Amino acid sequence: MTDFPATADTLITNARILTMDDRFTEIANGALAISGGRIAALGPVAEAAGTVAAEVLDAKGGLLLPGFVNTHCHAAMVLFRGLADDRPLDGFLKTVWAAEAAHVTPGTVRAGATLGLAEMALGGVTHVVDMYFHPDATIEAARKVGIGLTSGPVFIGFDGIDHLPWQERLCFAEAFVARHRGTDGVELMLMPHSAYTLDAGKLREVAVMSDRLALPIHVHAAEAPSEIRLVAEQHGTTPARILDRCGILRPGTLLAHAVHLDDAEIALLAERGSTIAHCPLSNAKLASGMARLKDLRSAGVTVSLGTDGASSGNDLDMFKTMRQAAYLAILATGEPDVLPAREIVAMATRGGAAAAGLAGSKGILAPGMDADLMLIDLSAPHLIPAYDPYSTLVYAAGREDVRDVFARGRRIVAGGRLTAEIGDDISDVRAVAARILRERGQGEARV
Amino acid sequence: MTDFPATADTLITNARILTMDDRFTEIANGALAISGGRIAALGPVAEAAGTVAAEVLDAKGGLLLPGFVNTHCHAAMVLFRGLADDRPLDGFLKTVWAAEAAHVTPGTVRAGATLGLAEMALGGVTHVVDMYFHPDATIEAARKVGIGLTSGPVFIGFDGIDHLPWQERLCFAEAFVARHRGTDGVELMLMPHSAYTLDAGKLREVAVMSDRLALPIHVHAAEAPSEIRLVAEQHGTTPARILDRCGILRPGTLLAHAVHLDDAEIALLAERGSTIAHCPLSNAKLASGMARLKDLRSAGVTVSLGTDGASSGNDLDMFKTMRQAAYLAILATGEPDVLPAREIVAMATRGGAAAAGLAGSKGILAPGMDADLMLIDLSAPHLIPAYDPYSTLVYAAGREDVRDVFARGRRIVAGGRLTAEIGDDISDVRAVAARILRERGQGEARV
Repeated sequence: MTDFPATADTLITNARILTMDDRFTEIANGALAISGGRIAALGPVAEAAGTVAAEVLDAKGGLLLPGFVNTHCHAAMVLFRGLADDRPLDGFLKTVWAAEAAHVTPGTVRAGATLGLAEMALGGVTHVVDMYFHPDATIEAARKVGIGLTSGPVFIGFDGIDHLPWQERLCFAEAFVARHRGTDGVELMLMPHSAYTLDAGKLREVAVMSDRLALPIHVHAAEAPSEIRLVAEQHGTTPARILDRCGILRPGTLLAHAVHLDDAEIALLAERGSTIAHCPLSNAKLASGMARLKDLRSAGVTVSLGTDGASSGNDLDMFKTMRQAAYLAILATGEPDVLPAREIVAMATRGGAAAAGLAGSKGILAPGMDADLMLIDLSAPHLIPAYDPYSTLVYAAGREDVRDVFARGRRIVAGGRLTAEIGDDISDVRAVAARILRERGQGEARV
Repeated sequence: MTDFPATADTLITNARILTMDDRFTEIANGALAISGGRIAALGPVAEAAGTVAAEVLDAKGGLLLPGFVNTHCHAAMVLFRGLADDRPLDGFLKTVWAAEAAHVTPGTVRAGATLGLAEMALGGVTHVVDMYFHPDATIEAARKVGIGLTSGPVFIGFDGIDHLPWQERLCFAEAFVARHRGTDGVELMLMPHSAYTLDAGKLREVAVMSDRLALPIHVHAAEAPSEIRLVAEQHGTTPARILDRCGILRPGTLLAHAVHLDDAEIALLAERGSTIAHCPLSNAKLASGMARLKDLRSAGVTVSLGTDGASSGNDLDMFKTMRQAAYLAILATGEPDVLPAREIVAMATRGGAAAAGLAGSKGILAPGMDADLMLIDLSAPHLIPAYDPYSTLVYAAGREDVRDVFARGRRIVAGGRLTAEIGDDISDVRAVAARILRERGQGEARV
């Protein structure tokens, strides 16, 4: 441990610190100092007695742990939260796609992403990998909320709702990367949508661009049985295999979902060093299936957790995502002890950072790391008693227990409330929703 | 609808009312009057203009619906919340049973049940069917919190942690029923534990007592594969069949779990008019399996929802229970539309009342029914927009959105806070937990 400094921006005291390092080091009664957006020091509270800080926060015995890294999201899709529930998958997609075509603009993406990112911040998320059209608008939203973002240009083989033909899409991607490389708080990936919306030639073009720009890739893969059928028709093989053949499967590539994989594909993923964003809430609600978590982890594949978008979720809650990851792993194997709670918390924190290529700066509490962290209040009835902190986090805690959240040292949630002002964005989202309901002849309903 | 009265104890205005009656009647901008613990009237807010009430509550556009009826719980087991996670089922049971043997007394049950019932009240539950030792202590706890309770004597074929041999257990049951018949806010059932803890003779004795005392029965049945094996060894048949043979399966009998049933058993349950408390959180966490919800409902069996105890949960959250019921039904069938959200809300409200034999007084909002209801604040980011109120309740809302709860007209939660003072009970629960950790050599940990 590093010595505590004489001065700090923020000092958090009286916390039960879960560092989430690979030995699961805990500090029973700890303090943590933040300076310049990074963790300056952490250790027993007595060692921080000499530190003078501009802001001192008494954790009152609460849990202090790294913020969640949500590795797969479409934040702006809160615009369509629950719009098309309770219908088969094709009906769901038709409804959502029609709403997207009619209502997605940079302005609505900005409002929707602000609301979605705010929801995540309130639930302890400090960094999000987000894939959606008009990514500049989502970057604006992330800056407003203060949350960390991995963003990138989306590649899709038809014009899409941003109306970009392929060559213009490539130009947009180059310009977007040039515009945001080095932008504070923003990490970049290239985001080809999937093997069922891109032909092999276009997938190869993205792989080549990834090499040239030295940027990792985020892509949907092997989510649902219907996708497996589509990819077989279009490519004559499986999603993982065509992605590999086109150079997409490589170290640093983050696959969203990866539910339907055979043994050879799991071995291939491990060999290539690609990672997975497991989205159990979305997979359950859309009947996509149960990912092979036990086998993936045994094979040495890094598995992280994602919420997916709120049109499939219907919320963006990493606590529920952790719990659902446990349930699906248990139900898929019949083994209640298949995935210990602390491993699930690790998937949501340092696993997320590793999957998103940010292991050097995020996901554990240690000196020099980004000050991305959350403080959990343990005083609610549903958290008493708390025999084991990891079990408490996975199986009993919820976003309602998140008291304070810091992202790169900035306090984005204070006392359970967002520090950013997002009233205008909420009004804009409600206006979009009201238009959608009017178009569907449900003008009287409040949204 | 009944006319609004000139005076009322409480008037709730500006609510979006979901009555949960069998036509799912809604009132877009409604008011509801409470008098003498019952619903006096409900209707459009304009119709309540002449009502003078001692207490007026502006719902500010929030959702008003019946309180949840949790049809299977062991509230006092919050004492052992998360004590034995991440181990196989037999290890889990050994740990929990040892802790129960050492620490369950009327005093610890009173403290634990108070905490558990408080947690449920804060999550919108207004009535609980609770099965546990020392039920008088749980009745005391329910009165303190103000929540409705179905209680009863537990029957188990060995001495059990209350140290009652069989004949004394029968005497206790008679005396308990005599003591509490007519107790305000308390309903009674007889609670034989299960077919694997009672032989056929004892099951028949409970059935005879049920006839004689005119009380319905609540029993565990067909929860896990291990139980199916045990019952086959002990009785040479399945749980549902031996319960039927002993006269336990009858109208009004409420079966907890009912996961592992064959087609003939489902038909038998429908024919007998028995009901089910489906506990999807417990079934997922303990690898018990996925109940055949679609088939049970198709056969006409009344299915309600239960949280089970917090040692298998690990919390007592009916919102998460609703969501998990949806996920398991979808995963079991591969059909995202198998169980529409409003049907799930119905299972948690009027379905629960029906399963617990309380359809005449609880589960829907209508004049003359008990004033058991909750008000949901729709202003949190994760609830915006709310295209469909039922979808919002099942897939996005949580206990953190419950603003006010009334049980038989008494406001047990006000502005998200419990109205009862339970600090002493929390201290008592923490003391038990600290003793357990000391005995396990983990004396330093905070609980």
